[in-house]
Amino acid sequence: MEDLTHFNESGRARMVDVSGKHDTMRVAVAAGTIHVLPATFERIIGGHMKKGDVLGVAQVAGIMGAKATSSVIPMCHPLLLTQVDIDYKLDNSKDANGYCSITATATVGVTGQTGVEMEALTAVSICLLTIYDMSKAIDKGMYITNLGLLSKEGGKSGDFTNPHIEAMHRG
Amino acid sequence: MEDLTHFNESGRARMVDVSGKHDTMRVAVAAGTIHVLPATFERIIGGHMKKGDVLGVAQVAGIMGAKATSSVIPMCHPLLLTQVDIDYKLDNSKDANGYCSITATATVGVTGQTGVEMEALTAVSICLLTIYDMSKAIDKGMYITNLGLLSKEGGKSGDFTNPHIEAMHRG
Amino acid sequence: MEDLTHFNESGRARMVDVSGKHDTMRVAVAAGTIHVLPATFERIIGGHMKKGDVLGVAQVAGIMGAKATSSVIPMCHPLLLTQVDIDYKLDNSKDANGYCSITATATVGVTGQTGVEMEALTAVSICLLTIYDMSKAIDKGMYITNLGLLSKEGGKSGDFTNPHIEAMHRG
Amino acid sequence: MEDLTHFNESGRARMVDVSGKHDTMRVAVAAGTIHVLPATFERIIGGHMKKGDVLGVAQVAGIMGAKATSSVIPMCHPLLLTQVDIDYKLDNSKDANGYCSITATATVGVTGQTGVEMEALTAVSICLLTIYDMSKAIDKGMYITNLGLLSKEGGKSGDFTNPHIEAMHRG
Amino acid sequence: MEDLTHFNESGRARMVDVSGKHDTMRVAVAAGTIHVLPATFERIIGGHMKKGDVLGVAQVAGIMGAKATSSVIPMCHPLLLTQVDIDYKLDNSKDANGYCSITATATVGVTGQTGVEMEALTAVSICLLTIYDMSKAIDKGMYITNLGLLSKEGGKSGDFTNPHIEAMHRG
Amino acid sequence: MEDLTHFNESGRARMVDVSGKHDTMRVAVAAGTIHVLPATFERIIGGHMKKGDVLGVAQVAGIMGAKATSSVIPMCHPLLLTQVDIDYKLDNSKDANGYCSITATATVGVTGQTGVEMEALTAVSICLLTIYDMSKAIDKGMYITNLGLLSKEGGKSGDFTNPHIEAMHRG
Repeated sequence: MEDLTHFNESGRARMVDVSGKHDTMRVAVAAGTIHVLPATFERIIGGHMKKGDVLGVAQVAGIMGAKATSSVIPMCHPLLLTQVDIDYKLDNSKDANGYCSITATATVGVTGQTGVEMEALTAVSICLLTIYDMSKAIDKGMYITNLGLLSKEGGKSGDFTNPHIEAMHRG
Repeated sequence: MEDLTHFNESGRARMVDVSGKHDTMRVAVAAGTIHVLPATFERIIGGHMKKGDVLGVAQVAGIMGAKATSSVIPMCHPLLLTQVDIDYKLDNSKDANGYCSITATATVGVTGQTGVEMEALTAVSICLLTIYDMSKAIDKGMYITNLGLLSKEGGKSGDFTNPHIEAMHRG
Repeated sequence: MEDLTHFNESGRARMVDVSGKHDTMRVAVAAGTIHVLPATFERIIGGHMKKGDVLGVAQVAGIMGAKATSSVIPMCHPLLLTQVDIDYKLDNSKDANGYCSITATATVGVTGQTGVEMEALTAVSICLLTIYDMSKAIDKGMYITNLGLLSKEGGKSGDFTNPHIEAMHRG
Repeated sequence: MEDLTHFNESGRARMVDVSGKHDTMRVAVAAGTIHVLPATFERIIGGHMKKGDVLGVAQVAGIMGAKATSSVIPMCHPLLLTQVDIDYKLDNSKDANGYCSITATATVGVTGQTGVEMEALTAVSICLLTIYDMSKAIDKGMYITNLGLLSKEGGKSGDFTNPHIEAMHRG
Repeated sequence: MEDLTHFNESGRARMVDVSGKHDTMRVAVAAGTIHVLPATFERIIGGHMKKGDVLGVAQVAGIMGAKATSSVIPMCHPLLLTQVDIDYKLDNSKDANGYCSITATATVGVTGQTGVEMEALTAVSICLLTIYDMSKAIDKGMYITNLGLLSKEGGKSGDFTNPHIEAMHRG
Repeated sequence: MEDLTHFNESGRARMVDVSGKHDTMRVAVAAGTIHVLPATFERIIGGHMKKGDVLGVAQVAGIMGAKATSSVIPMCHPLLLTQVDIDYKLDNSKDANGYCSITATATVGVTGQTGVEMEALTAVSICLLTIYDMSKAIDKGMYITNLGLLSKEGGKSGDFTNPHIEAMHRG
């Protein structure tokens, strides 16, 4: 069985040595969905025009979250992110619980010795948690699903697309 | 329609004024699930005995994540957390994609003027993202689902149990 | 001459001992102004309706800045802020350099043993610096003036209003 | 009208993509002034010799503030600062309110894909706020003015000198 | 054998539940020594009068380090520190390696549900590491010894004095 | 007498200008020892097999501490660490106070314009303080000694080995 690289010979965690790797341009895209009551959904999509822009606050939180990744995920390397962006897809169709959904997709770039998958995933997580926080006064039953890596480019292991996450979000 | 309290009269975000609320003892419990390949699952459950304790690192990350909540979620109040704990449920039954699952449940307590839902949710998120990070060398297709608030106690709005999240995790 | 309380008997900096002080409810209000080219001004005031809400991002930054105060100002006590809010006053009249102005006013509250003047001042500073950052692609000559404490309530030293800052901002 | 680059096509904030830019050596210089009562002024300038070095503490705060920039200004890129320094100019002439002035000038350098204007401005802001904090026990009416970018070198947009800020500080 | 309270029933780390404990006034005092070459020693003690105040910078770092404790020590509770102070004892007598010594003693106070031993120890550590950093251009062989808790007051377990650490520092 | 480079011409602290230095691969190794009661020692070495892995938590804390170095040590440059690892040596022989010892050795690597001595020393410090924190419920008399730099490679000043620290740890 393949080894987890994040452990040393004593079986203890380490930050993997990437000093032998070349700087390459890398991009990672992650996505996740928060499910909200229809009334919350209406309230959120109204925000950009009227007053109270939940998604605007979540956007800022997600971008700052990407930058905080190496502070909160123990074995992540610090990286000089060159871009962070987040997009939303709003879907008022209802799931089995009668909830609508908001999907956030984060794109993160770097020129460096290791990739930015964790930065993209952290950006989406903090973004969705902020939507929860801003809306929880009227809706405590929201839940997050389908959080995963859509694709990555660059680096030694090459390009990657995740069919399961694609099926969840791009299908 | 009820207002989102996190916005001021100009429709801009604010940190809600809780100065008139009493200090009460509060506990929040949140949970979420990460889905991993069976080989990854075997590798992770072996960690506690052998070498490379993925869940041990994720535990530390989740607890530190709870403490970082008011730094990463923009409108969260700083709070003096009195307890943070995380438990795991490991399930080797396979979902539709053939993935096993690890569920993390975080319990956070405080005596304060506002609740710790966000701290419990953030603890679970950072914990699961760390499992992803520690395992991604052998498995990039992992995904997180069913992240939500199981229950909260204390505070003016009283106790709360979330039937949807309960059905997902306690069913 | 009165002593600066932030120094110990050896003349070295310390965090003042406030352990003998009672918890009281305190509020501080600070303000500051950024001066921007008329074209930048038009671009910013258009943001809330159209696309690109500079003040919305600055609002989030200022509120998070208030929470970061005890991390960036060396002798500040950590405090459990109970409220943070920021308001803007937009003035298209031109100063001697032909610049319009945006004034941010931050209100911060706490129930604690020491006041929140620094939190209010830091919120305004970070808010205005964020406006600068978001607009600097089209205007590098912006400048900040009249940053000071408008008023404080609560605490042993009692209420305080600053006539100079009032004259600058409320005149 | 020129676009603010810090917004994406949906009009939401993003961290600008600088991945196509070359690493160049860049320096930015910013300055700002805090106005203090003559008695506070005397107390501060006495500090370096006697006991209680306000400017020494502010120097450390400002340098650490430069390093914290990408954590507190939402859309700032993380950067590997290669130098940070702060100088003071003390002026006991009195302004219209009878206040003396202390001007802090921060010089920040980097070799990177984007500039360090925000780092220099943040260093000055945190430095001056720390002077305020250390002195506020004897003087709550201090105020900050003329905070802006004096000059920048390097980068695609070339060198820049700000005549308004120069007139304020170098005149 | 007594249990380590920082582990839960599954043997995984947790932040201990202190919600049942009363707020009491607590003080902890820790100390540690850095050993430096005589030439470095002379350079450091000269700093307060002349130029380059190593101990002044270390003082600020130690105080900020106390406030950062719950961010860097995983199971530490966040606390509202009410005082932090650091004192130095300079000793030019030479140890077996011919090194002089500088001892830093940190005093930290809180009114809270748990003690501040870790905050005092962290303050001393960061303070001494900063002395190392500021002096390492002329002396890379410095070393730190005798870092421990001198005493603590308050809390359920009562007052405590450490004879070994006392013998090291107060003897 | 050689000058401390961390001060400017006014004698105030600065972050040294390294912009003229080349990127080179650098590694630093630091070590330190915590002395614990025999009962605590037994409890800690049992942790990896049974339940309650003190050294596992300390490992994570130390690695995250390395990444936090430029945030807590005022004049440290931010750096893109390429590796961090920590090893332990457990010694049940008793010192003069009857204490056993645990030595942590941290290895930190970077490709950059300045070295990682402080990152290695900070990793060891935070690691040992975490062992203290996890064990202090049963042992408050622990103390840390022999914390210093074992060796560094790379950079203009070349390789360095510290005979005093070597004698302490490798003897």
